[in-house]
Amino acid sequence: MATEIAEQPAALERTFEALLGRRDELRRLAAGRGHVLMVARGSSDNAGAYGRYLIEVHTGRGATMAAPSLATHYAVRRDLSDTLVVSVSQSGETDEIVDTQAWAAACGARTVAVTNVGDSTLADGADLALVTAAGAELAVPATKSYTAQLAAIAVISDALGPAERGLATALLRVPDEVRRLLDARAGVDDAVTALAATDTALVSGRGIVYGTALEVALKLEETCLKPVRGLSYADLRHGPIAVVGTGVTGVLVAAEDGPLVAGMTDLAAQLGDLGATTVGIGGDRGFQAACRVRVPGPDLPESVAPLALIVPAQLVVEALARHLGLDPDAPRGLSKVTQTDPGQPA
Amino acid sequence: MATEIAEQPAALERTFEALLGRRDELRRLAAGRGHVLMVARGSSDNAGAYGRYLIEVHTGRGATMAAPSLATHYAVRRDLSDTLVVSVSQSGETDEIVDTQAWAAACGARTVAVTNVGDSTLADGADLALVTAAGAELAVPATKSYTAQLAAIAVISDALGPAERGLATALLRVPDEVRRLLDARAGVDDAVTALAATDTALVSGRGIVYGTALEVALKLEETCLKPVRGLSYADLRHGPIAVVGTGVTGVLVAAEDGPLVAGMTDLAAQLGDLGATTVGIGGDRGFQAACRVRVPGPDLPESVAPLALIVPAQLVVEALARHLGLDPDAPRGLSKVTQTDPGQPA
Repeated sequence: MATEIAEQPAALERTFEALLGRRDELRRLAAGRGHVLMVARGSSDNAGAYGRYLIEVHTGRGATMAAPSLATHYAVRRDLSDTLVVSVSQSGETDEIVDTQAWAAACGARTVAVTNVGDSTLADGADLALVTAAGAELAVPATKSYTAQLAAIAVISDALGPAERGLATALLRVPDEVRRLLDARAGVDDAVTALAATDTALVSGRGIVYGTALEVALKLEETCLKPVRGLSYADLRHGPIAVVGTGVTGVLVAAEDGPLVAGMTDLAAQLGDLGATTVGIGGDRGFQAACRVRVPGPDLPESVAPLALIVPAQLVVEALARHLGLDPDAPRGLSKVTQTDPGQPA
Repeated sequence: MATEIAEQPAALERTFEALLGRRDELRRLAAGRGHVLMVARGSSDNAGAYGRYLIEVHTGRGATMAAPSLATHYAVRRDLSDTLVVSVSQSGETDEIVDTQAWAAACGARTVAVTNVGDSTLADGADLALVTAAGAELAVPATKSYTAQLAAIAVISDALGPAERGLATALLRVPDEVRRLLDARAGVDDAVTALAATDTALVSGRGIVYGTALEVALKLEETCLKPVRGLSYADLRHGPIAVVGTGVTGVLVAAEDGPLVAGMTDLAAQLGDLGATTVGIGGDRGFQAACRVRVPGPDLPESVAPLALIVPAQLVVEALARHLGLDPDAPRGLSKVTQTDPGQPA
């Protein structure tokens, strides 16, 4: 996992080189389609959550996370002639994702596959395959394949968005920002100390970085074997905040700009008032000042910040797992390709 | 909370009487609109999750859970002329929901408000207001207002679905099924014993009853002050299952028919093999046999089962809170109307 975390600047550079040239094809494929449906599970689903927000904000198209059971178990009949379906799977071999893509095509969707394996079933079945260039990923917890998926999704968003507000310039700055964060490891040890001392952790983010919060939670949970949940501060305040008090650690994730930094800063203050330890990843100066433990993030606009904001969190998770005497590369009970319904025909 | 749980059969009867006659209006309002967007938070959002599945399965329209920040913080410009927006709020006064409904209308959506308060801001601002007849709800955890919201959503689904496969006959059987479950309280004490003995609980369901799992988790969390998460077995298997072992209690929710009972039964067996204690709510005989603690559910088809399936879980939550010495009516840190961004202008 540590090796693959360190490979991310190069993996991102290769992925941009492979995919930025596909934007015209993407534009043609999506022409006249006002809806985008993201199909994924696990870390890929957290990448999809980035797409769900960025596509709506940047392109004005409606974007939805698919519920695959509607395809695989209910065999719903829908008209998807107004929809571009984006399926995301590192291996391209998760039956549920492959089957949902095939269902969508049969319903009239045009399909884009985002996968790390060029000759996978998912890539073969798509109208257009965006093959990320992360290289083979051996550790079970996804790191470089996840950030490469984010890169692919940012390229899709750029292709479907307005030419005059393109994302490419900011995207090409990402690899160097990731290098800088990897070299600095700022705040990582303090965050490990805070998380090692807690029994109850939660992760919060909102908007374009909400998917980052989900991914931080999933990584903490699967790698460190603690139940950890990612949720927006909106959902946190509608119930779960009842459990926040002394002994709880809240990991808060924010970009350095955008309309949600203020709300995340308010949340940091509220959790601190309730007695929780707050670990702030990213954000602006006010946000960092409101958090107990400070893990600086990238100097990137909110629209592309998730590609780098996850990186210090990956460093924290990897170091925390080792601190706890666990093997970050092979968490208990998980395998690299997960089938949702292992006991049933695909 | 106990009183309001007991009032549900009458609240459901009043709500059906008030709303079934509105189906022609609903049909006209939704004519030609292929997409439904559900806007809600908290328990209302869990009711929305029922709508998200039922509407797709029963009507073939696409259904999506809104991300309100896209309206309230990003002010996204979208064309919603193909969309019916259904906003759900017990009080009808949560700023975020009111504002998102207004944004949707400005984007060209037609709007339906589901609320328990007829002269609320949400009802006033909607093209069509479905006012549930739950009566005043005083306990902070929603019970009768939640099941009345499910009733309203089922009425919407029935209105938009095929006349030859109507839901009304099954819906009218719900109040008596709820009465039967309230009288029997079968398995409730055993479930309380199992949950009181655990530090780590999770709740799983999938498909049409997925929203029920989310609601059971939220009720357990806010009322019993334990971190509890609801997730589909698909998402559970993609990471979080790493934390399941001895000492974990899994509450599993299933309908007695439908395409997901088999998968939920497999999950019960898997969690048992991992050493977890399983509490099964609803399901068929095979599902109940696969669970350690058995809480029977209603004799209703999956499409309308959520209206009654939550009721034994409410009984468990209320009894568990009292068993733990907590006040189920007024959980710590929560109020009846939650504002998502209390520190910021609406």
